[in-house]
Amino acid sequence: MRILGIDPGYATIGFGLIESQHGQCTPLQYGAVTTPVGADFPYRLQILYEDMTGLLKDLQPEAVAIEELFFNTNITTGIQVAHGRGIILLACQQAAVPIFEYSPSQVKQAVAGYGKATKHQVMDMTRRLLKLNAIPRPDDAADGLALAICHARSRTSLLAALQP
Amino acid sequence: MRILGIDPGYATIGFGLIESQHGQCTPLQYGAVTTPVGADFPYRLQILYEDMTGLLKDLQPEAVAIEELFFNTNITTGIQVAHGRGIILLACQQAAVPIFEYSPSQVKQAVAGYGKATKHQVMDMTRRLLKLNAIPRPDDAADGLALAICHARSRTSLLAALQP
Repeated sequence: MRILGIDPGYATIGFGLIESQHGQCTPLQYGAVTTPVGADFPYRLQILYEDMTGLLKDLQPEAVAIEELFFNTNITTGIQVAHGRGIILLACQQAAVPIFEYSPSQVKQAVAGYGKATKHQVMDMTRRLLKLNAIPRPDDAADGLALAICHARSRTSLLAALQP
Repeated sequence: MRILGIDPGYATIGFGLIESQHGQCTPLQYGAVTTPVGADFPYRLQILYEDMTGLLKDLQPEAVAIEELFFNTNITTGIQVAHGRGIILLACQQAAVPIFEYSPSQVKQAVAGYGKATKHQVMDMTRRLLKLNAIPRPDDAADGLALAICHARSRTSLLAALQP
């Protein structure tokens, strides 16, 4: 199954596509969609919509795993990220790809085995699980891959639990 | 000039279209776009996108005035409203309508002459300025009309200030 993990935002949106089979995850493609810094915000949303729509068409994922949004200290940035996340959800919905949402602690738990793992621990486990020589860059792409692994593992656990 | 005011959201999105000429505002159409309660959130965003796109095509505004988003006590609702607002900005941007953003206090100041006016004072002034017999329903539609009036008046003030 082709799973696309997405780290939502409005400026840099990380993504990672993996193939998940029999509990094994293989990286297929990863990177980041970016919108032009300094441009009007509605224009950046339009670019994000067009690029996400194109990416979904190119990558043909069978499932999307996207991070849930929690507000931290910077509420202004949080509002803008939520605007961008709305656009990403719209593009996935229009592409008719099933959407699954995971909290940061669910991702940490699924990838590093510990819900309070550090960012570096999650990235290093992502690298190891995908048999990569180095941690994928940019960080946003590594976050996207971690989300995809999280979905693959949650799905595997669910299938295992359902078996008689 | 045809000005469309929009009260952003994801469940009920109020709108009000006015014609503004020589400082006079005439109501043309108002109401609310709603998305199906209980449906999946990404599906609601898709409905919102389609309905907003259709509304902009029907109403042919020359400018859109939309409320800026501030977070109050309910942060979960705030995140969802920001998702919806992103969709609305996208639809306006794709329709190539200039977008103007106003804070709640700017709307109160422009419509009721006082930045801390009550909701009822703003609604009653909206009714009077548009020469309506009753306050428009639902409240979201009245908010949309108030935003449109705010833009008309801000624009008029600007033009007056620019005259020699």
